[in-house]
Amino acid sequence: MKVRVLITLKNGVLDPQGKAIEGALHGLGFEGAENVRQGKLIELDIKDASSAAEAEEKAKAMCDKLLANPVMESYLIEVMEAA
Amino acid sequence: MKVRVLITLKNGVLDPQGKAIEGALHGLGFEGAENVRQGKLIELDIKDASSAAEAEEKAKAMCDKLLANPVMESYLIEVMEAA
Repeated sequence: MKVRVLITLKNGVLDPQGKAIEGALHGLGFEGAENVRQGKLIELDIKDASSAAEAEEKAKAMCDKLLANPVMESYLIEVMEAA
Repeated sequence: MKVRVLITLKNGVLDPQGKAIEGALHGLGFEGAENVRQGKLIELDIKDASSAAEAEEKAKAMCDKLLANPVMESYLIEVMEAA
C-alpha cells in the first residue's frame, strides 16, 4: 500500500520557515500569498498491510512513534493505492 | 483560496533523509516500511485568485520561481477550498 503522510505544525506554533517563504514570495511579486506554512511530506510503501485500514493504522503508529513530534506537529494520513 | 503544494524529489534523485527515516522505522519494528521518501508540504492562502484555476496558475508560478528546485524536485498543487 502506498501511503502519504502530511505533517504540519499545529496552529499557534510559530513557523519562521513559512514566514521566510511568505516574505520571499512577496518580494517576487506574489502579494496575494498569505498564511504560508511549511510542513513535511513523507511517502512510503507499507508492504505488510493487507487493507487500507491496516495501512492507515500502521502509518498512524509510525507517526506516533517517530515521524511526527506530538507536541508541535499534527499529521494527516492518506492511503493512496495498493503499491 | 487555500492551496496545498506537495514537493517531492524526482525519481532517481538520492534521498538520504528518506533512507534515514526508513532505517529508523525498521529499528522500531516497522519492517514493512519501504521506499520512504521525504518531501516538503507548503500550505498557503492565495487571496487574489478568484477561481480554483487562477489559484492553481499562481501557485504554479510560485513553484517555478521559488518553491521547487526544477532540477531535483517535482511538485503537485491541490486547491483545497475558498480560504
